[in-house]
Amino acid sequence: MSYMKVTSGFVQALAAIVGEKNVLTGDERKAYSRDESTGPVAVMPDVVVRPENTEAVSRIMKLANEHGIPVTPRGAGTGLSGGAIPIAGGIVLSLERMNKIIEVDRDNFCATVEPGVTLIQLYKAAGEQGLYYPTYPGETSATIGGNVATNAGGMRAVRYGVTRSFILGLQAVLPTGEVIETGGKFVKNTSGYDLTQLIIGSEGTLAIVTRVLIKLTLIPGKSEILFIPFPTLKDAIEAVPDILKAGVLPVGIEFMEKDIIQMVEKFTGVSIPMHDRNAFLMVMVEAETDEQVQATAEKIGDVCFGHGADDVFLPPNAQAKKELLEAREKFYPTISHFGMLELVDIVVPRSKIAEFVAQSKQIATDMGINLVAYGHAGDGNVHMHPIGERTPEVEAKVHKLLVELYKVGMAMGGAVSGEHGLGIAKRDYFLGVADPARVELMKRIKTAFDPRGILNPGKLFDRPGKAS
Amino acid sequence: MSYMKVTSGFVQALAAIVGEKNVLTGDERKAYSRDESTGPVAVMPDVVVRPENTEAVSRIMKLANEHGIPVTPRGAGTGLSGGAIPIAGGIVLSLERMNKIIEVDRDNFCATVEPGVTLIQLYKAAGEQGLYYPTYPGETSATIGGNVATNAGGMRAVRYGVTRSFILGLQAVLPTGEVIETGGKFVKNTSGYDLTQLIIGSEGTLAIVTRVLIKLTLIPGKSEILFIPFPTLKDAIEAVPDILKAGVLPVGIEFMEKDIIQMVEKFTGVSIPMHDRNAFLMVMVEAETDEQVQATAEKIGDVCFGHGADDVFLPPNAQAKKELLEAREKFYPTISHFGMLELVDIVVPRSKIAEFVAQSKQIATDMGINLVAYGHAGDGNVHMHPIGERTPEVEAKVHKLLVELYKVGMAMGGAVSGEHGLGIAKRDYFLGVADPARVELMKRIKTAFDPRGILNPGKLFDRPGKAS
Repeated sequence: MSYMKVTSGFVQALAAIVGEKNVLTGDERKAYSRDESTGPVAVMPDVVVRPENTEAVSRIMKLANEHGIPVTPRGAGTGLSGGAIPIAGGIVLSLERMNKIIEVDRDNFCATVEPGVTLIQLYKAAGEQGLYYPTYPGETSATIGGNVATNAGGMRAVRYGVTRSFILGLQAVLPTGEVIETGGKFVKNTSGYDLTQLIIGSEGTLAIVTRVLIKLTLIPGKSEILFIPFPTLKDAIEAVPDILKAGVLPVGIEFMEKDIIQMVEKFTGVSIPMHDRNAFLMVMVEAETDEQVQATAEKIGDVCFGHGADDVFLPPNAQAKKELLEAREKFYPTISHFGMLELVDIVVPRSKIAEFVAQSKQIATDMGINLVAYGHAGDGNVHMHPIGERTPEVEAKVHKLLVELYKVGMAMGGAVSGEHGLGIAKRDYFLGVADPARVELMKRIKTAFDPRGILNPGKLFDRPGKAS
Repeated sequence: MSYMKVTSGFVQALAAIVGEKNVLTGDERKAYSRDESTGPVAVMPDVVVRPENTEAVSRIMKLANEHGIPVTPRGAGTGLSGGAIPIAGGIVLSLERMNKIIEVDRDNFCATVEPGVTLIQLYKAAGEQGLYYPTYPGETSATIGGNVATNAGGMRAVRYGVTRSFILGLQAVLPTGEVIETGGKFVKNTSGYDLTQLIIGSEGTLAIVTRVLIKLTLIPGKSEILFIPFPTLKDAIEAVPDILKAGVLPVGIEFMEKDIIQMVEKFTGVSIPMHDRNAFLMVMVEAETDEQVQATAEKIGDVCFGHGADDVFLPPNAQAKKELLEAREKFYPTISHFGMLELVDIVVPRSKIAEFVAQSKQIATDMGINLVAYGHAGDGNVHMHPIGERTPEVEAKVHKLLVELYKVGMAMGGAVSGEHGLGIAKRDYFLGVADPARVELMKRIKTAFDPRGILNPGKLFDRPGKAS
């Protein structure tokens, strides 16, 4: 696919839609040239446009489609796979000004928001009505639009699922400019193809989401965190299926090892309990009453003791609880600080995690690479980072390592990305392991939405075009 | 679209794939000419074919696609919208022989089954491993494949969601014969477009599902049913948002009125408690312990008393509980018995149900039509049936009534079908209220899967072709 160049006439036409101050063509564009993924990838867009409403988005898309100009939609730019990087140039369409909470509906337990609303804004607005958005991908400055685009996951998926589980409907602008509405304030619906679910996780390649209808719940009464040390990672991870079989449904179950705990301590200066042990589970529990939380914690403790745990730490107060959660949330910046070379986000069946991590570490060791692993033991989502100094030789070795890890993960019935999305960072790895019939079908679906291929080109399965 | 005729050579080619005894061309075809929807619609297929495995399905589809012969996939034929009726003739592809439970995986809480497995088979196989499939669409002889096709709902959606919420992955054969696999044994996944969710609810128009990966839960410890009489239906339905705001999450909340209760008593001969009251909620509750069930029941009772309920009936024993549930399950055959003319399956936001039912009844009364209403108050899914003697005049009047009801429902933010699907029965009503841009997009998606339009033609949004 080849794209047309942005001309000064085209820029003027954009300005006529959104006003001159919302069309950026100077150095301010730099802030829109990349996201938070690793590595040095950044591409300057020809122009950044910041519409305020759906109608403006529709007019921009009609114009871009007519002229064959690529458009890369953008939320807060907190993505980790390069999904918001405008690798074919053209327009970055930033949704930052569409940041209004339109409604919190207490009777139907839902909220209607614009895509530029951040997670922290949503948590707050829901909370003011006694309601709750249970998905917690971690980065609260991320936008809902970005969360929808990547089907963001996080640490609470065992009990609550992922972004997909909480989106009831969308308003979206097609690449050709038509505005569609999908879903509604209900869970039951079987009235044609589920466009809501198709657009979720499509990483801004099928449509630009301009409004999101979100299911909310009541605020849970009580919560607790259990921090449980094990002699080995294998012991820790093998406890997980048995925790769930014991009839409790924690919010999340995270696994981690001594290496990352000690790195976090160095990076943050905060001391973490039992930091000399080898491996840990961090189990988050919610229930209505203290008694229920207590009963659940006891069941989990019993299972873990049966798997070799020698302690169950419960933070003694709110501050200690907060510190423990914050330590977990600091894993990503910590590893960045110590030289993150890549990030792996593979998901495997939870019964396979122990084996997957062990095999992956062995492969890395054999290649002389230091691989840090942690992740969401309750939902099978494993994060792994090769760390070290970035040189061309190391990068080549890391690339070879990743190719191996994806093969191993897929052979265990896994998928390439659990929660970050493919973007550009995982595109080629995905194409390396995905069934061609499935990829061809995805391409045909893409064309059904976007006949000229102008929306977020070069992502998922699409190798990039060049401006002609 | 025009289709080719089935020739004797084509029938022989089918027999070469599945064996002669699995190709039906005689009177046995009659059992494959309709489903359980109302009205006299039945279309004889030219040929019925019963493959035993995915490879055979793939070969049949390649053959049909090459020859331009329409194919209508079929499960148990228990659908209520005509989705399995072969209205363009050609092949009925029955999945009845693909009825094996391939695996129940206790470590990952899931099952892998063939599409012809019935709900009762699945409940039993899961139960033997201490696991549970919470979706309960009611008709336990329905197949999983059919449930996936229609995204079946049922009485337990308030707590558990619908079929869509429990399907982790699929194996499916495209209309062109390629076999694809989607999803896996995990909830988190963002590796390209979610084909699993797109195929669910597509009513056999996009692909033939040949294997289903189903999420299971543990068996809930305790359950209870509350049967609560109210002075008016309005009182009953208005209690529903407040029940949910009270911090309890029932499995389901059903509403019904005296008319249907008394019809069921006549039809079944079973006496229903408090049958002289005007309106009722039936609330189903599940929890781990008796104490939790009791606490939940008390909260629900308190809310209902506040909304004018004058009693809360708890069945005194297992037999009474069973009778009450069975009475609810008999609504459909009861109304059929008393002259069901049509079935409406509209879903509206739950805060709108009272208003929607009141307006609908008023419109029916004004037109001189007797309209029975009941349904799933907790999830907004309203079932309404005009009843009476079927004459051409009455049918025309009922058609006019339905057009009005769909308009009213859509104006309240509803959707045409909550759980039955559009099939052919609701196709034209759907096309009458759906946004054309959305319909055109669905048609393009259909073409991305099915370029020759051979798979289940004439359904959803597609007006039928004729054999040429």
